[in-house]
Amino acid sequence: MSVTAPRGFRAAGVVAGLKDSGTRDLAIVVNDGPSRAAAAVFTRNRVKAAPVLWSEQVLKGGRVRAVVLNSGGANACTGAAGFQDTHATAEKAAELLVDSAGEIAVCSTGLIGQRLPMDALLPGVDKAVAELSRGDGGLAAADAIRTTDTVAKISFRQGEGGYMIGAMAKGAGMLAPSLATMLCVITTDADLPAEALDRSLRAATRVTFDRLDSDGCTSTNDTVLLMASGATGAVPGEDEFTALLTEVCADLTRQLLVDAEGASKAIAIEVVGAASEDDAVAVGRSIARNNLLKCAIHGEDPNWGRVLSAIGTTDAVFEPDQLNVAINGVWVCRNGSFGDDRDKVDMRPRDVTITADLSAGPHSATVWTSDLTADYVHENSAYST
Amino acid sequence: MSVTAPRGFRAAGVVAGLKDSGTRDLAIVVNDGPSRAAAAVFTRNRVKAAPVLWSEQVLKGGRVRAVVLNSGGANACTGAAGFQDTHATAEKAAELLVDSAGEIAVCSTGLIGQRLPMDALLPGVDKAVAELSRGDGGLAAADAIRTTDTVAKISFRQGEGGYMIGAMAKGAGMLAPSLATMLCVITTDADLPAEALDRSLRAATRVTFDRLDSDGCTSTNDTVLLMASGATGAVPGEDEFTALLTEVCADLTRQLLVDAEGASKAIAIEVVGAASEDDAVAVGRSIARNNLLKCAIHGEDPNWGRVLSAIGTTDAVFEPDQLNVAINGVWVCRNGSFGDDRDKVDMRPRDVTITADLSAGPHSATVWTSDLTADYVHENSAYST
Repeated sequence: MSVTAPRGFRAAGVVAGLKDSGTRDLAIVVNDGPSRAAAAVFTRNRVKAAPVLWSEQVLKGGRVRAVVLNSGGANACTGAAGFQDTHATAEKAAELLVDSAGEIAVCSTGLIGQRLPMDALLPGVDKAVAELSRGDGGLAAADAIRTTDTVAKISFRQGEGGYMIGAMAKGAGMLAPSLATMLCVITTDADLPAEALDRSLRAATRVTFDRLDSDGCTSTNDTVLLMASGATGAVPGEDEFTALLTEVCADLTRQLLVDAEGASKAIAIEVVGAASEDDAVAVGRSIARNNLLKCAIHGEDPNWGRVLSAIGTTDAVFEPDQLNVAINGVWVCRNGSFGDDRDKVDMRPRDVTITADLSAGPHSATVWTSDLTADYVHENSAYST
Repeated sequence: MSVTAPRGFRAAGVVAGLKDSGTRDLAIVVNDGPSRAAAAVFTRNRVKAAPVLWSEQVLKGGRVRAVVLNSGGANACTGAAGFQDTHATAEKAAELLVDSAGEIAVCSTGLIGQRLPMDALLPGVDKAVAELSRGDGGLAAADAIRTTDTVAKISFRQGEGGYMIGAMAKGAGMLAPSLATMLCVITTDADLPAEALDRSLRAATRVTFDRLDSDGCTSTNDTVLLMASGATGAVPGEDEFTALLTEVCADLTRQLLVDAEGASKAIAIEVVGAASEDDAVAVGRSIARNNLLKCAIHGEDPNWGRVLSAIGTTDAVFEPDQLNVAINGVWVCRNGSFGDDRDKVDMRPRDVTITADLSAGPHSATVWTSDLTADYVHENSAYST
């Protein structure tokens, strides 16, 4: 179902021939309305791929008729010619849908620094538009945007009053502050204006995708696009809609986390007792990015010293002798020194929870990361060769 | 020779029994004067080991008679009891040297969060003081401070006018912004006051140890201690002394880099064309910490897209379409897009140079890092278990 779970959407995923593997590599999601209100958040990397630069312009209008997504090439760092390729992709889709290119978003993912083979991509758009459907299209589209993802990632939820939210996402590495190398398309048949969608999307991604940090690397292509068809006419309250949207984003965040490249552990870092939410996030991120700790977790070693060492590099409010750390519920560090017996920590489960108590205030935040493994190294040392 | 190359110093390295391996684990370096002027720089981690807290106080007086160093335990995150252990170590050395504990520095390295076995350490200090010598002591001391270091690291230089600088260092992982998990003792028989030593040491470490970033992790124990005996009576000019000291620090930086845990490549990141030196360092550090790039270099893949992606996460002054990147001398990225053929890059040598031209000004800086390898993961996932 994925993005076609809500009414008013059709989708397709096809083989355009961009990937050497010969698997699906081009997707399209079309909003048949009556509304085409939309909002998006993009990577905060200052080196932005051509499709990000393009889609940022499209989204300024708050309306999206369709989005074309490709795997097999990021179209990043490809200069003016790369931007023209994105433009041509949007024009092609617009022509086939008899619509304006100015309301066609584009997303790309894959290797940076190579032009896309437009002689394969543009016929792929033809093929995808011809195959648009509400039935199988959603899953095929979710499949087509995969790169190193081992599984397609989809989610959907039913809201009060008969509306739905559906979504698909890809992302398996480079998951960092500004979302991830993730592409995500979220659809809804609720009827909400672009401004409300924008607020809801920022609120939902702030506590979900934005707090997933698999390897500290920020992609050039991250895009999360929310499109509303209004097909049910349902007008949910903004808080209720935001809550449901957050559920969908949290579900996908979890799927991205579990599928992170080479990961053998899914690590939740709960920072509590912080003087501010910003402090909690900064501390969580610092812990999430500590390679030595990530290796230790991989080795099932409850190495709380590396947690303290990571906390110590932040500007957060805390006193070193008031830090407490629990790993999987065992308070192995109390008052900045050793606490309960580390041998009591069961490190065998895939899920690992690190709780860091700063003893500095009432605020908290959770950041998710994965362990650092030899498989991660293998996967990322052979990516483009 | 190491720290005993300059006149006025004796050293020893002994087996105290702190390490399970039964190898040397305790060192002492004694300054017999006539001067005992000293300066030091310490980790910027806010979670500081007991010996760092102790030695910071000692150095406030600008005088150091001796330094006791141990491997086999960091004495970090060990609370008030751990601080007392450091104090007792200094008192023990002071008693044996018939001197003041307030002029005895202490350095520790090893696992965080465990008390040191003082019943082994204190007799070790006895043993070390009994073995103090100018002949073999320097090398034995350099050997005793090793943890995962595969080789002892020493350096010495002769200055104009007959004075010398000698040094030993340890460090193989956790090498990051605030020096590294490195301990370094530098000696000289020049006669310079503590204030001059402090300025020279800060100037030398700023462009050497401080720009080595093996894995982005900052230790709780980093210490670089400079002790002057004045035994030759030579009074070098401050600029000349700083230049020689910088040579020694650069030599040790290179040794630390090449011995970084699991590393198969030594990577120099030269950032040029920066609007400020701070920008150049920030960009260099961001590139040095990009796990995906470090994996690519390990795989001998000249993946310049990951370089641009890393630059894009900084606040440095640059325009994305004016970035140029060379890898081993081949400009694979020009004006933010693909440049010369990446197949021309010879990635086989152990040394890899990444040149990033920001096209934003006249400033430059070099940051050194190593690649990310499966060996790094193996070594650090089994460290404390």
